[in-house]
Amino acid sequence: MSEIKQDANKKGLLVVVSGPSGVGKGTVLSKVLESSDEYVYSVSATTREPREGDKDGVNYFFISKQEFEKRIEEDKFLEYAEYNGNYYGTPKDYVEKKLAEGKNVFLEIEVQGAMQIKTKCPDAFMVFIAPESKEALIERLKGRATETQEAINNRIKIAERELRACLIYDRIAINETGKIDECAADVMAAVRAEKLKPERIFDKIKQFIQ
Amino acid sequence: MSEIKQDANKKGLLVVVSGPSGVGKGTVLSKVLESSDEYVYSVSATTREPREGDKDGVNYFFISKQEFEKRIEEDKFLEYAEYNGNYYGTPKDYVEKKLAEGKNVFLEIEVQGAMQIKTKCPDAFMVFIAPESKEALIERLKGRATETQEAINNRIKIAERELRACLIYDRIAINETGKIDECAADVMAAVRAEKLKPERIFDKIKQFIQ
Repeated sequence: MSEIKQDANKKGLLVVVSGPSGVGKGTVLSKVLESSDEYVYSVSATTREPREGDKDGVNYFFISKQEFEKRIEEDKFLEYAEYNGNYYGTPKDYVEKKLAEGKNVFLEIEVQGAMQIKTKCPDAFMVFIAPESKEALIERLKGRATETQEAINNRIKIAERELRACLIYDRIAINETGKIDECAADVMAAVRAEKLKPERIFDKIKQFIQ
Repeated sequence: MSEIKQDANKKGLLVVVSGPSGVGKGTVLSKVLESSDEYVYSVSATTREPREGDKDGVNYFFISKQEFEKRIEEDKFLEYAEYNGNYYGTPKDYVEKKLAEGKNVFLEIEVQGAMQIKTKCPDAFMVFIAPESKEALIERLKGRATETQEAINNRIKIAERELRACLIYDRIAINETGKIDECAADVMAAVRAEKLKPERIFDKIKQFIQ
């Protein structure tokens, strides 16, 4: 079985968060996760070596390349990708366990990975963090870049492509400059409201129909 | 034109709230409306005589029967009904004005009226306030009733029919005993999140697509 069925009895929601590089996704999600223990991050598996301070099961699940490829074969990842010769992936069993505990599990992932997840988990709730304007984002990318002009142009091109993908998400939270708490509150409201959909609470309301 | 077009530039959302008699809609909505001036009630028009303390334009817009019927002809109501020989209706121009000011306008209305509104305003956001169980609601209706057994049974029958309608609403907020603040927070989250839909903020995000 390659899908995660989200039982309506469980309270947890799988929340996929995307947004262009430089938009402030990390800061927004930190605010959300700090606010309540009903929100948890998904912990990824990787084949890269642990760095100083890395804790297995907290920062990543550190596993061997052989083990990772075995799990790919066994369809144990919601999505995975290879960067710089190392694998990174989202373990299905970890996400399932947290959802079963009633946690809202957040995956921060780029647009293509997000689409992979939506295919495997049609119930996943897709949130896009957007900047207040394309120009503001481009300025930010330029400001942060310590790279060649070509590398900067390439990052801008990727950001523009990612911005166009926002329309396929369920909700868009705009991270306006200086209003990060508002954006975090938007994300939390979006998750809370999604769980009020009739189809998500059918077990609670079916008594009304019978 | 018989529809209210909700411009994406405007912040206001038309929120239709229904729920069976006895569920506590009024108390929940009071909590919501007290919390912020971005929420307003729709003021109805009526042909009944003002009672002591009634203020025109606050409790109701008091108009003559002739004027009311003229406005029906001119399609000036989102919905209207007749009770005890008096008309009651939701004036389209008042709702439009408040939406244009960026207010979220709440209409508290029974299921059939709600469906009338949804037909005229496909953008209306439909919220249902439900009890934690059918039994709890029935007990409450029985407790409150000072009527004949037949009248009580009739009220229960209406409540049961209304509960079955919850599935056609966009969101269901369950008003659990002793958790009225939670239910009000659900309603507010639902409104906030609805306004994060890509199609509702298209004017803000179309720059990303161009």
